[in-house]
Amino acid sequence: MYRYKLTVSYDGSDYYGMQRLSNHDSIQKTLEKSIKRMTSKEVKVFVSGRTDKGVHALGQVVHFDFEALIEPNILTDGLNKRLPEDIRIIKSEIVKNTFHARHDAKSKEYDYVISKKTSSAFTQRYEVYFPNIDVSKLKEASKLLEGTHDFGGFTVTNELKPTEKTIYSIKVKETKTHIKIRFHGNSFLRYQVRRMVGLLVDVATNKKDISTINKILETKDQSLAKNTAPAKGLYLVKVHY
Amino acid sequence: MYRYKLTVSYDGSDYYGMQRLSNHDSIQKTLEKSIKRMTSKEVKVFVSGRTDKGVHALGQVVHFDFEALIEPNILTDGLNKRLPEDIRIIKSEIVKNTFHARHDAKSKEYDYVISKKTSSAFTQRYEVYFPNIDVSKLKEASKLLEGTHDFGGFTVTNELKPTEKTIYSIKVKETKTHIKIRFHGNSFLRYQVRRMVGLLVDVATNKKDISTINKILETKDQSLAKNTAPAKGLYLVKVHY
Repeated sequence: MYRYKLTVSYDGSDYYGMQRLSNHDSIQKTLEKSIKRMTSKEVKVFVSGRTDKGVHALGQVVHFDFEALIEPNILTDGLNKRLPEDIRIIKSEIVKNTFHARHDAKSKEYDYVISKKTSSAFTQRYEVYFPNIDVSKLKEASKLLEGTHDFGGFTVTNELKPTEKTIYSIKVKETKTHIKIRFHGNSFLRYQVRRMVGLLVDVATNKKDISTINKILETKDQSLAKNTAPAKGLYLVKVHY
Repeated sequence: MYRYKLTVSYDGSDYYGMQRLSNHDSIQKTLEKSIKRMTSKEVKVFVSGRTDKGVHALGQVVHFDFEALIEPNILTDGLNKRLPEDIRIIKSEIVKNTFHARHDAKSKEYDYVISKKTSSAFTQRYEVYFPNIDVSKLKEASKLLEGTHDFGGFTVTNELKPTEKTIYSIKVKETKTHIKIRFHGNSFLRYQVRRMVGLLVDVATNKKDISTINKILETKDQSLAKNTAPAKGLYLVKVHY
């Protein structure tokens, strides 16, 4: 038995959660179907973690087992021929049989892409327009979220898993047209990145005071960060193992 | 009564012809609905010409009449707030009451966007990958299509309108990643641009001899140019009046 690790990029616009809107297939299911079409065998695909409706991926990671040896480049090309064009295999690798896409993920990087100008008909799926952002204030506010905190205030009410997480860094990059916020953390709670972005934007546009950030971290009061930034600006960039 | 001219950009991916896949609304209908939402009045929208399923527009032109004076910038902003994000108003103008978006169109420009590398999950709606194109051959073949010809060989069987048209220029531009072919002509038949591109690509990849071009122009034999290039690479760039 061989274990294969795939690095996958996808446009999340037409998927609900990991479920395809049109035919109710998840990314896993779509990958499983393509693998079956290529190999004539049923396999089970494991994903590093689910992404919400509209969230994109540049480097999602999945794994699956298959009885025969497939040369990685042949696997990449064969799957890309059979997958819908909004899912692309970036890389295939043969890994140790103990590797697990979800359990072994050490940290993840996400980008949030903000446009400084209104989006065109062609870019509206891939960015969010937020006017009048004070970038230096955005950077100052981001710093307060770095480190180990209880992020329970930035998720949904019924989160049962531990809510203490570590954010290694939040980097804000500005170009003429865009502001990109890159989050690197050991793991993230549901909606956490989008709720952090919502609050950061509110602070950077003077709608909320910067002190709100520490208040949420201390009180875990979810009502203070209810402004969830749209999914379409969010990209899962990389999963580190 | 005031006549308004709108320059409109749209991502054609989710439209069938000019009909929206999800709710069967056409671009006209969608515009009419947005105008109604803004003004509380029913208006009829006229388009310069229909585009096929998946074809995009950077500068489609429409007109409509409305009893009251609306400041053009207010019209643009008001409609963009009400339209789906894959349709954007680029510009609104008040024009003479005799202006007609379709009848007055003097010429049109179309771009066909070819990618030299396989598309990513995020660019696959907006370009077509054709490998191994000989660009100098593409330019040479394009020259043969310029001028006034009977383009009946490049359309669908049952075209009843006159098939003699003039192409003023076909310009091929190459960058590191893309090849763009810009067609400028007085008007184009259904599928004409995409069938010309299909043939040009076949010639530029040595699948067909360059002599096929003159053969089709002379014989109008549609079976010689059946390779219709995919709609998603095609953009209506500009309508000249």
